[in-house]
Amino acid sequence: MEAYVTLVTSSNYVAGASVLAHSLRLSGTRRSLVVLHTRALAHDSLKQLHEVFDRVVCVEELNSNDTASLALLGRPELGVTFTKLQVWNLLEYSKCVFIDADAYVLKNVDDLFAREELSAAPDVGWPDCFNSGVFVFVPSKTTFQQLLAFASQVGSFDGGDQGLLNQFFTTWVSDPSRRLPFTYNMTSNASYGYRPAFARFKDDIKIVHFAGAQKPWVGIPQSLRGTDAGALYERWWRLNEN
Amino acid sequence: MEAYVTLVTSSNYVAGASVLAHSLRLSGTRRSLVVLHTRALAHDSLKQLHEVFDRVVCVEELNSNDTASLALLGRPELGVTFTKLQVWNLLEYSKCVFIDADAYVLKNVDDLFAREELSAAPDVGWPDCFNSGVFVFVPSKTTFQQLLAFASQVGSFDGGDQGLLNQFFTTWVSDPSRRLPFTYNMTSNASYGYRPAFARFKDDIKIVHFAGAQKPWVGIPQSLRGTDAGALYERWWRLNEN
Ligand SMILES: O=c1ccn([C@@H]2O[C@H](COP(=O)(O)OP(=O)(O)O)[C@@H](O)[C@H]2O)c(=O)[nH]1
Ligand SMILES: O=c1ccn([C@@H]2O[C@H](COP(=O)(O)OP(=O)(O)O)[C@@H](O)[C@H]2O)c(=O)[nH]1
Ligand SMILES: [Mn+2]
Ligand SMILES: [Mn+2]
Repeated sequence: MEAYVTLVTSSNYVAGASVLAHSLRLSGTRRSLVVLHTRALAHDSLKQLHEVFDRVVCVEELNSNDTASLALLGRPELGVTFTKLQVWNLLEYSKCVFIDADAYVLKNVDDLFAREELSAAPDVGWPDCFNSGVFVFVPSKTTFQQLLAFASQVGSFDGGDQGLLNQFFTTWVSDPSRRLPFTYNMTSNASYGYRPAFARFKDDIKIVHFAGAQKPWVGIPQSLRGTDAGALYERWWRLNEN
Repeated sequence: MEAYVTLVTSSNYVAGASVLAHSLRLSGTRRSLVVLHTRALAHDSLKQLHEVFDRVVCVEELNSNDTASLALLGRPELGVTFTKLQVWNLLEYSKCVFIDADAYVLKNVDDLFAREELSAAPDVGWPDCFNSGVFVFVPSKTTFQQLLAFASQVGSFDGGDQGLLNQFFTTWVSDPSRRLPFTYNMTSNASYGYRPAFARFKDDIKIVHFAGAQKPWVGIPQSLRGTDAGALYERWWRLNEN
């Protein structure tokens, strides 16, 4: 059995997870939709998740508590993303695709299940690292325990799950078949080469990911109104309303 | 014979080209240092270039004149970068490494001459495209003529050399051996994953490239003082003074 998996550790990401689930249904996938959550979620939030996901699984929160690295990232709240490691405990699935709750799909991406662990797309900050908002993985108790041991012994260079997973899954760099096209995890960015490339490749985009501090549920950033990036936010809102 | 090649189409890039040449000498390379320039350069500028380059070659200016695409890029002045195509006319060399005049090397990069045409590093705006600030190429009259024909028939999706070269050299995407590590063309950027990755990988950086509007010779941007990115500008200034 195979599944799409996401994570919600705080109620503000519930709307994001719901939009993601909704977009996956629209993509026509037959795979299970699974959401992991922590005890931080109130009854109302859980009810919302039950409406759109096939399975809602409570897991224990994990936190890097690495304030120094998180300060470099400018995102003190991301220590909690270590909870993402819990996805390796979904042993009832033979293979899964993890997608961040701040992302949605524009097209069917079931072809990802043909990829090996750990497949992911490059990060725009440092493209020799992968972005951990979308990745293919194989649940395994052993891998989970190795990840935990690695987290406590080596740590994460950015204090979040992305630094940790990049340091652990070093085959991503050496094996090109594990490098997903950027269109599978398209993060808008301020580098000036982005806009013309977006205009050229936008019809190929499969997953839109709002990495960074400007989450769509907070609103459409004023500075992005009328731009390509702004249109991605508007689309999130249309998915949220339906 | 092999060479490092750069380009200067306007006098404001002369200081950049000189710093690049200086940094290449410091890297201990024995390859020739070649600069192409257009007739736009005054006698003073040419004199400066002759002091640091082994060869100073005058070429005809080429311009995309594609104002619509360049507007998307926010860099109207980059139509002139089509002049970069002239490097394929350096037929006396068997292989070359092109480096933009707004870049400098921190370490010896002669290993690049073992790479095939067209090898380049990913662009931070859209990492499935390469950044055309650093690339390995093989001079060839045929390639030059094909590039010119392609430029007039197909054009460039960003109005500059980068869009054109990406559309022409499609093997870059399909052949992983042509993908240089990001450390061979490290462009600082505002994506928030950049800072922790920079802190982790900074000792591996081989070429620093000031892609974008904030060129080092204009000054150190106020907002970058005291940051990692700011230190890269300071280093440029030290190279400029010596
Ligand atoms: O307060 C938080 C922070 C993170 N997450 C989960 O962890 C993922 C990674 O965090 P985020 O997307 O904010 O990181 P970014 O993509 O901006 O680096 C989110 O998508 C959520 O699935 C969450 O539920 N609550
Ligand atoms: O006015 C100009 C614009 C460009 N160039 C040359 O073309 C290269 C590419 O332009 P630039 O580096 O400004 O583009 P970016 O790297 O910012 O995309 C420069 O490094 C120079 O070698 C130049 O000499 N004068
Ligand atoms: Mn995210
Ligand atoms: Mn440049």
